[in-house]
Amino acid sequence: MATVIEDDLEQGMRALGAAAREAARKLGQVPGEAKDRALRAAAASMRARAPAIIEANGRDMKAARERGLSGAMLDRLLLDEKRVEAMAAGLEAIAALPDPVGAELAHWQRPNGLDIARVRVPLGVIGIIYESRPNVTADAGALCLKAGNAAILRGGSESFFSSRAILASLQQGLEEAGLPAAAVQMPPTTERAAVGMMLRMSESIDVIIPRGGRSLIERVYEESRIPVLAHLEGNCHTYLHESADPGQAVEVVLNAKMRRTGICGATETLLCDSSAAAALLPPVLDALIAAGCEIRGDEGVCRIEPRARPASPSDWDTEYLDAILAVRLVGGIEEAIAHIARHGSQHTESILAEDEAAAARFLGAVDSAIVMHNASTQFADGGEFGMGAEIGIATGRLHARGPVGVEQLTSFKYLVRGSGQCRPG
Amino acid sequence: MATVIEDDLEQGMRALGAAAREAARKLGQVPGEAKDRALRAAAASMRARAPAIIEANGRDMKAARERGLSGAMLDRLLLDEKRVEAMAAGLEAIAALPDPVGAELAHWQRPNGLDIARVRVPLGVIGIIYESRPNVTADAGALCLKAGNAAILRGGSESFFSSRAILASLQQGLEEAGLPAAAVQMPPTTERAAVGMMLRMSESIDVIIPRGGRSLIERVYEESRIPVLAHLEGNCHTYLHESADPGQAVEVVLNAKMRRTGICGATETLLCDSSAAAALLPPVLDALIAAGCEIRGDEGVCRIEPRARPASPSDWDTEYLDAILAVRLVGGIEEAIAHIARHGSQHTESILAEDEAAAARFLGAVDSAIVMHNASTQFADGGEFGMGAEIGIATGRLHARGPVGVEQLTSFKYLVRGSGQCRPG
Repeated sequence: MATVIEDDLEQGMRALGAAAREAARKLGQVPGEAKDRALRAAAASMRARAPAIIEANGRDMKAARERGLSGAMLDRLLLDEKRVEAMAAGLEAIAALPDPVGAELAHWQRPNGLDIARVRVPLGVIGIIYESRPNVTADAGALCLKAGNAAILRGGSESFFSSRAILASLQQGLEEAGLPAAAVQMPPTTERAAVGMMLRMSESIDVIIPRGGRSLIERVYEESRIPVLAHLEGNCHTYLHESADPGQAVEVVLNAKMRRTGICGATETLLCDSSAAAALLPPVLDALIAAGCEIRGDEGVCRIEPRARPASPSDWDTEYLDAILAVRLVGGIEEAIAHIARHGSQHTESILAEDEAAAARFLGAVDSAIVMHNASTQFADGGEFGMGAEIGIATGRLHARGPVGVEQLTSFKYLVRGSGQCRPG
Repeated sequence: MATVIEDDLEQGMRALGAAAREAARKLGQVPGEAKDRALRAAAASMRARAPAIIEANGRDMKAARERGLSGAMLDRLLLDEKRVEAMAAGLEAIAALPDPVGAELAHWQRPNGLDIARVRVPLGVIGIIYESRPNVTADAGALCLKAGNAAILRGGSESFFSSRAILASLQQGLEEAGLPAAAVQMPPTTERAAVGMMLRMSESIDVIIPRGGRSLIERVYEESRIPVLAHLEGNCHTYLHESADPGQAVEVVLNAKMRRTGICGATETLLCDSSAAAALLPPVLDALIAAGCEIRGDEGVCRIEPRARPASPSDWDTEYLDAILAVRLVGGIEEAIAHIARHGSQHTESILAEDEAAAARFLGAVDSAIVMHNASTQFADGGEFGMGAEIGIATGRLHARGPVGVEQLTSFKYLVRGSGQCRPG
């Protein structure tokens, strides 16, 4: 019986992949205006269908409560009128971005008269595997569409009905604009086997984008036969150099940790020069504790701040995504850089320093997608970078690193125009 | 016993990976001048050690002859004074290229005063797995070094001794410039198990670049837990549109097929509009046959050219890398585009046409790394594109597509400079 079901699923996934491939071929050739019309129609459909979306979300919420999900998880899952409106407005914002496809990235002539241009083209079919909020279904589907790609969206099972209701609006928008509805699809089931199948559909999926924790990313790298654009959660660091401005340190560290604890750009470990710890740390830790943050410190930190709990070695490698901060004293900038190289996830790190030479050394030596000076790590975000919207922050080194917006969801090709040139020799 | 040897190999490979990682950390921080000095010293060493390199090559040649390798394979393997000098000159040419590391790719300000720059950084440690000529060892090692990367080079077993002799010069150059010799390494053995180990060394290798045929690429995608930048051989097409200039057609097709039959940009299939075949094809096929090319044609082609052999279905999918050309009549440009979508390898395709609308349609619709108009597919080459040198032509869609030169062997990071900004909301 199980085999029969798996065979059915396999067949369904193959059909879904073939339809996505066909849709991507069409989408790659349509004018930007048609894609924008589809996005605006999807936004209108989402507003019109808000009650149905909220009702579907109710089914997911009920199941989540029965399964005992935490309050924070339930809040991430919840859709209300305001959040549906925010999703619709997000689609319109993506429609308003310039069309990346066809843009000329470079253009030059060769001495033999050949004219060479590098122009943006869609990536093709993108498979997105994510664990989090249902609004990712709207954002990720819309960004893929804007860049001329077809998308296969595999969200978490806890948001299955919400995501299907959102998908219905995206597909209605596509149809109203005369574009193939198969440009955005979801597997028909929440079975985990569908993920494994996606990772092997190399004939119909060009890129896999996993968004989630380390175990998801590792599974994807282990199983995927398709190129992967990994989005790992961030184990982000803020480093207080001895030259840091004390007032700025309080404000920026508080923001970097506590503005939102659940996003990937939240600071998880604070490093502080031991030479300045007695002066810099107490007001910073005071403010954090007053805001409800738990401090896990090394020996030196616990001496300075008795309310700190002793950190265990695993704290340096933990992405809490919660109101907890690991704090460690270092013997200077090189030790800070070495700690980050060993424990960081190459996402986002920030140095607070008035000493420009120290800042330059940190910006040069820290090997993360985003390296900051005197700014909160919570700015690690495509919108804050001015990219309009993002699928997430890529932590790999190939193709897109840092925020992944519409431009990062494209590839390119070379157009070579000649007048009968033959290669000599 | 086998297990003991495998354990030893595993341990050796891990040590090699750790040394490469350490070398990459250093290389990423050194000025371009030091890397160029290492490349020039390596060129000098190669000239001084030419007799040793040629002697090592003699051992490979002897073994290759005993194993009965073809004349063409033996020629690819052979190193003589002239070829060693060409390799040394190649290193100097790479030294003369601008340093890609640290270059600013983009720079902008945000309304909140944040200053954001995207700057080039090395990829890290690159594992290159290749099958072909020993000179790839020099070229690939030098390109990786120029871009600030450490390289682990796993060439074909048939060129093992030649490659080790070349490696000795690269490492001598590194040492003379005060750089770590571990920046360019080879596995200590020709055992195939070393490849499998490389593909799982995700803690010490950042990118795998396979160069070779479909079976190598497929094995790499199947086994690799590391991101892959694939270089597949090209099943390239030239398409004679009915508006093609007859004289240009003869010259360009002859060059595209016969200039060098063994390179990945060589045309393997010729498509021709049936409406113009009687006029266009005979002089083209005459010239090819006179140059020693075998023609495998569909029915229509065999009627026009009696010396053509009938093509079998597999011919449309074959990269001959030899003096053989598959030739097929098509009912117009859409059929040509569809044939290429079905049988091509997304490498390089060219249309010969005087009709500008047909050319524009072909350039827009053909989804290959390089699409040409009125030019020979043999121009698919980083040097011919003005990139200085290349590792090969990437046929994937992520990161680098088309020629892979020093710039394509880099990643980037974002530098964000602030004055104490906190993210609102």
